[in-house]
Amino acid sequence: MAEKRYLFTPGPTPVPHEVLEAMSRPIIHHRSSDYLAMFESCLERLKLVYRAAGDVLMYTGSGTAGMESAIVNLCAPGDRVVVVSAGYFGERWTTMARGFGCDVDEIRYEWGESPSSHDLAARLRESGGAKVVFLTHSETSTGVVADVEQLAAAAKDAGALVVVDAVSSLGAVPLETDAWRLDSVISGSQKALMTPPGVATVSVSADAFAAAAADGGARYYFDWERTRDAQERSDPSFTPAVSVVIGLEVALGLLLEEGLEQAFDRHTRLGRACREGVKAMGLELFSPDDDRSAVVTAIVAPEGLNSGELVQTLRSRLGIVLAPGQGPLKGRVFRIGHIGYYDIFDITTALAGVELVLAEAGADIERGVAVTRAMEAFEHSHV
Amino acid sequence: MAEKRYLFTPGPTPVPHEVLEAMSRPIIHHRSSDYLAMFESCLERLKLVYRAAGDVLMYTGSGTAGMESAIVNLCAPGDRVVVVSAGYFGERWTTMARGFGCDVDEIRYEWGESPSSHDLAARLRESGGAKVVFLTHSETSTGVVADVEQLAAAAKDAGALVVVDAVSSLGAVPLETDAWRLDSVISGSQKALMTPPGVATVSVSADAFAAAAADGGARYYFDWERTRDAQERSDPSFTPAVSVVIGLEVALGLLLEEGLEQAFDRHTRLGRACREGVKAMGLELFSPDDDRSAVVTAIVAPEGLNSGELVQTLRSRLGIVLAPGQGPLKGRVFRIGHIGYYDIFDITTALAGVELVLAEAGADIERGVAVTRAMEAFEHSHV
Repeated sequence: MAEKRYLFTPGPTPVPHEVLEAMSRPIIHHRSSDYLAMFESCLERLKLVYRAAGDVLMYTGSGTAGMESAIVNLCAPGDRVVVVSAGYFGERWTTMARGFGCDVDEIRYEWGESPSSHDLAARLRESGGAKVVFLTHSETSTGVVADVEQLAAAAKDAGALVVVDAVSSLGAVPLETDAWRLDSVISGSQKALMTPPGVATVSVSADAFAAAAADGGARYYFDWERTRDAQERSDPSFTPAVSVVIGLEVALGLLLEEGLEQAFDRHTRLGRACREGVKAMGLELFSPDDDRSAVVTAIVAPEGLNSGELVQTLRSRLGIVLAPGQGPLKGRVFRIGHIGYYDIFDITTALAGVELVLAEAGADIERGVAVTRAMEAFEHSHV
Repeated sequence: MAEKRYLFTPGPTPVPHEVLEAMSRPIIHHRSSDYLAMFESCLERLKLVYRAAGDVLMYTGSGTAGMESAIVNLCAPGDRVVVVSAGYFGERWTTMARGFGCDVDEIRYEWGESPSSHDLAARLRESGGAKVVFLTHSETSTGVVADVEQLAAAAKDAGALVVVDAVSSLGAVPLETDAWRLDSVISGSQKALMTPPGVATVSVSADAFAAAAADGGARYYFDWERTRDAQERSDPSFTPAVSVVIGLEVALGLLLEEGLEQAFDRHTRLGRACREGVKAMGLELFSPDDDRSAVVTAIVAPEGLNSGELVQTLRSRLGIVLAPGQGPLKGRVFRIGHIGYYDIFDITTALAGVELVLAEAGADIERGVAVTRAMEAFEHSHV
């Protein structure tokens, strides 16, 4: 039998059959009425998921492309900005903003720490504020989901624009674009939105559009105003990733059919199940052991074992694809993603595989309990 | 019966079943060995199609994203560049280069004219040269395929770097990246490469890399060096459009299996067939009536008929999707694209549809001859 593969990376994530099927139909033209009606529906669904009344823009690109659009629309060289950084993707904000000439004040935490809104408020008070504050909602490298509601409130109180990397969080954990007054929220098709990679989504508030218009920096492909105008007059500026957009429209329909609250609840319970199973084996969690941590579960490899090799073995031996550690966590942690199209049997599959491979590697773990504990935690843990 | 659709737009173009099938398989991770082996093969195939020994970079983005990458890597504000422009996409080079602060000397032709290498050589001589010359190989808005070999020679003789928009031409008409000393050639997945849109491809010569390194301008997502390094160490910088890349690898295999020369020959004969059919109906060609014009056939709408309405009617009445005129050609011309996955029966379908709709609209055309003439031209016109 051809080997079955089980994908637990925090993006790309498994794509439902309905989405793959829609994407495999003959291609259509991006200025045809078929496409434009579908695109309109996709944008409406996106706004419901963003919980935003205003514009959500779509770019052909990765999540990083969406992040870059926020920098080049909002920041001119020399602008003072604050980046709250506690992992790989927080550091990316810093690198990118510095690369475009921003004067970056970085509030830098150890990887795995949870950023504090008090720290941000204090820093903004001391430094006299900033034009933009860049946040990371779900820090995919560590499994930490930051309290963006509180962080954004601190930034808004200091008069800053707030930009949030929600690439791995949108649709998995609560995020309120309008209610939390977020000026720009960046996400991507390939995480909780259950679609292959290729499309970045970017919400833009009225204040953010005004700041972009005042900025006048050099930009073309990523220019927010050009993209908004093109979306409004149903005349795409550049050829979009037609099949990915078609898939996204179907996937967003599935997500909204389940219900956003139900999806959040499911992710919370998947996180609980994963953590309970991991702990039952006697393993140490790296990501926080709390309900906020519902996107990625990061686990410390047992003493003497390299997490990268563990990930390799799971893949070659069992067809299970987890994510290794990044940056300073390389070799130390491995990560189980549960973003998007997952149910409890995905978690039990991952746990059963980890248990076997660790046992074979001679790790001192408890056997025969992880899967059962995970099932119990999922079934009896309604949020 | 559900209506069949026939897509004749110059991008997106029809996608072969083999490509759609490959794209509809379960998604894989972009750092997995499965993906990396496939990606390696895709790059090797691309180089064969580019006829380039050096690097071809892949970006998640539209063709315009690839064009922007050339500008932001090669040009700093104030740099003197020349744009050769004879239509919609030539003008895009000008708009983008000016937007990024270049001092643009535009050699501007009427839409539909063929650029001359003598004009370019003269301009470069008069003005003392330029850092970069931007060319358009196939001007999709008019159907004109420029003589890039001669134009590039004129630019290289004057010491300029040469950048070519080959989005709708690569794989359809001859293009020799190395032999013609082209420093950067931009294409996209959705034209002759027979794959859905989402990936831009960019060849970069050693001289172009050196110029980019010396430039030091602000760029991140589009930075050539970052992308090359990531490709070399098989560690994508940003999540690629996995399914589009998978499709592209299959499509490039189909193209190379047919043979590049055979594909060029087929496009030449499709162009001939289309033009002969159009002329047999008594219609006036807008694109040149020569063999170079093998990508898109632009046709003047008969007196008194609006070409946009004609395109609408073909679509709603017969399911045939042509392209209307752009810019100054809006309402005046309509375009039949024959880039990529087309054979003679696509041309006869388009011609049969055009004939019927024009007859119903009361146009004074010859009936009953176009399809036969096209078949004859295709069958008896080996290049």
